[in-house]
Amino acid sequence: MFTTEDAKIILQEERKKYEKYASENLKLNMARGKPCREQLDLSTGLLRVLPDDVGETGIQDYRNYGILDGIPEAKKLFADLYQVDEKEIMVIGNSSLTLMYDTIQRGLQFGFGGEKPMNAQGKLKWLCPVPGYDRHFAITELFGFEMINIPMDENGPDMDLVEKWCQDPSVKGIWCVPKYSNPQGVVYSDETVERFAKLQPAAKDFRIYWDNAYGVHYLSEDVPLKNLLEEAKKYNNEDICYIFGSTSKISFAGAGLAFMISSEKNLTALKKLMGYQMIGPNKLVQLAHVLFFKNAEGIRLQMDKQAEILHPKFQKVLDILQESLSDLAKWTVPKGGYFISCDLPEGTAKKTVQLAAEVGVVFTGAGATFPYKKDPLDSNVRIAPTLPPLEELSKAMEICCCCAKIAWAERVLGL
Amino acid sequence: MFTTEDAKIILQEERKKYEKYASENLKLNMARGKPCREQLDLSTGLLRVLPDDVGETGIQDYRNYGILDGIPEAKKLFADLYQVDEKEIMVIGNSSLTLMYDTIQRGLQFGFGGEKPMNAQGKLKWLCPVPGYDRHFAITELFGFEMINIPMDENGPDMDLVEKWCQDPSVKGIWCVPKYSNPQGVVYSDETVERFAKLQPAAKDFRIYWDNAYGVHYLSEDVPLKNLLEEAKKYNNEDICYIFGSTSKISFAGAGLAFMISSEKNLTALKKLMGYQMIGPNKLVQLAHVLFFKNAEGIRLQMDKQAEILHPKFQKVLDILQESLSDLAKWTVPKGGYFISCDLPEGTAKKTVQLAAEVGVVFTGAGATFPYKKDPLDSNVRIAPTLPPLEELSKAMEICCCCAKIAWAERVLGL
Repeated sequence: MFTTEDAKIILQEERKKYEKYASENLKLNMARGKPCREQLDLSTGLLRVLPDDVGETGIQDYRNYGILDGIPEAKKLFADLYQVDEKEIMVIGNSSLTLMYDTIQRGLQFGFGGEKPMNAQGKLKWLCPVPGYDRHFAITELFGFEMINIPMDENGPDMDLVEKWCQDPSVKGIWCVPKYSNPQGVVYSDETVERFAKLQPAAKDFRIYWDNAYGVHYLSEDVPLKNLLEEAKKYNNEDICYIFGSTSKISFAGAGLAFMISSEKNLTALKKLMGYQMIGPNKLVQLAHVLFFKNAEGIRLQMDKQAEILHPKFQKVLDILQESLSDLAKWTVPKGGYFISCDLPEGTAKKTVQLAAEVGVVFTGAGATFPYKKDPLDSNVRIAPTLPPLEELSKAMEICCCCAKIAWAERVLGL
Repeated sequence: MFTTEDAKIILQEERKKYEKYASENLKLNMARGKPCREQLDLSTGLLRVLPDDVGETGIQDYRNYGILDGIPEAKKLFADLYQVDEKEIMVIGNSSLTLMYDTIQRGLQFGFGGEKPMNAQGKLKWLCPVPGYDRHFAITELFGFEMINIPMDENGPDMDLVEKWCQDPSVKGIWCVPKYSNPQGVVYSDETVERFAKLQPAAKDFRIYWDNAYGVHYLSEDVPLKNLLEEAKKYNNEDICYIFGSTSKISFAGAGLAFMISSEKNLTALKKLMGYQMIGPNKLVQLAHVLFFKNAEGIRLQMDKQAEILHPKFQKVLDILQESLSDLAKWTVPKGGYFISCDLPEGTAKKTVQLAAEVGVVFTGAGATFPYKKDPLDSNVRIAPTLPPLEELSKAMEICCCCAKIAWAERVLGL
């Protein structure tokens, strides 16, 4: 514990550093989970892997219309990678976010599983493990769901609370990032996955939105995640699963492939509606991915290379936090994913992010990891180490720690 | 005019031919407006036009996240081609159908121009020029709009009727394919476009869904279409325009680019909502198109080559119709687009398509060109000459004419 006197000394020291930083005209961005240039370079071969006679390559001419839910070769690639049946997957578009948004929009407009359209069911609720992914929360806020915070621990969301809320028929979904979660890097425990698999919500149109965004995005050794769909089948409960993923952080961000995994029954119902909206995905981009990666093992080899690039960056952030904030803050040590979640002393996150911004270092807005952007403790900061070069990363983290100390000291001293 | 005796003779002759066709085990498809192989081969260069150092090419690294509404180079390409401002266009995804569907879904869920969500406005109506495009009608049927048939002539839709219906505040939109219309190949006259441009519907959230699918898809010389957005501006009415198009039939079908043109105000409102649904389009596919076509003139050169491939096919269909059905049927002679619309004698279209199917020749389902698939006269057949090789096309058309004659003769004779 620090005395008031300690706080005064720290404040003085850190303010001195801060003024130096202010004079440096920095422009550093730690806000977005973007891949860095070296990661993108790993997929250069994708750009020109298609042969001139590509029209002859697949089961039909992939340069022409046809196939709503992804070419068979792409379905097989991701079905193998995520250990599901090819009938349980569709490969569509370039963004899992779009698949999630569109799926929820379909539930609102047309309803799921024979239930009334959710639009016609009055005021509805959604469960949000926190801290979590801001773009998830933005979607359910836009659609007018009342969002319920569900605390996370090292095993995943508080399942007692999830099960309790699911007795309420107005609760229609839960956002999950089950592996290397955004922002903590938590991998849901076997018990958590099992409890999700046998969940019996009051609402028949409740779905688990299982955003497996970082399914193969380990930093050193992969941590296994139980297969939700397989588990759910044991309880004849597979219709509860909507599983999403993409290659945004495997190949190119925005120029990759997205996929959705669910029960055959669910996919059949969704595809019937998708047929009105779509002419089918870009099959040439899909084929290029298949030719480039060859198979699931090819993707794992790519992820080994990604890990080599990212591991030192994460380690650098962790080292600086350990060196500078071990007495003040707590943070997660992720085994994969794109973020480090740092809990600063209560009431200091906003101030810390603001101070950093004032010297040209942008972090994810404090609160962004909570529904309605409201962190009840004003404590959580999401750190995204992937994009900046190592040197910039060090600088940004030093500044982050300096700002956190100033924010803390000012609060202790009532300034 | 034919006598009953003529009909008997014709029936006998044609049935003989039909039996011969039946013995040939044919499998021909004239149903879909798909480009043929030679057309697709024109874009082979697109497949590998991206350089290895593509990350350096644009205003930012197009292999990474960022840019919601299309890369500036792609916006410029299509803005030049369609003579609009770059602020009035967005280039998104691979399908104008998806852009239309998503736009209407946004109007239903969130409302347009400050009006209530259309979902909350009770029973609504939609104007459908007929015959028209089946996938348009499918969307508005799915969303529960009551669809009103608006007859087409050589100048476009019956504008008196359009203006009359627009006095009804429950009318929220109209489907238009203003250039080389599907299926007739009609180019809307200047007067028609002007009347659309100054349309004053009772509903403030009424929009013209201007699907300019064949904007540069001439068969020999291009027929100009007045610029709806420019015209509408003269009446401060530009917010009424939602204009769509794609390169599905310029480069690759399904692996091309789609775009939407509207007032800056409309696009700003739409983009705000799109930001929740999307991470942005595949920028590398966009850049490949820009590098391949270079500029609007490059697209026109490509369309010259497309026309060279397609013109003989259309001519062949017209020749066969002229030779075989000039006494029985009427058809359009399109100057562009993908279809020929043929009006058979009343009450014979379904039977004709069915007879053809029974000997292995698939035409677009009779009625498909009308809302609810109901052609009130059972007369219209849509012919799609683009996909089959010339020889197959001739065969399919001979069979079509034979079936049409049988259907007509059987009807005349009360069989």
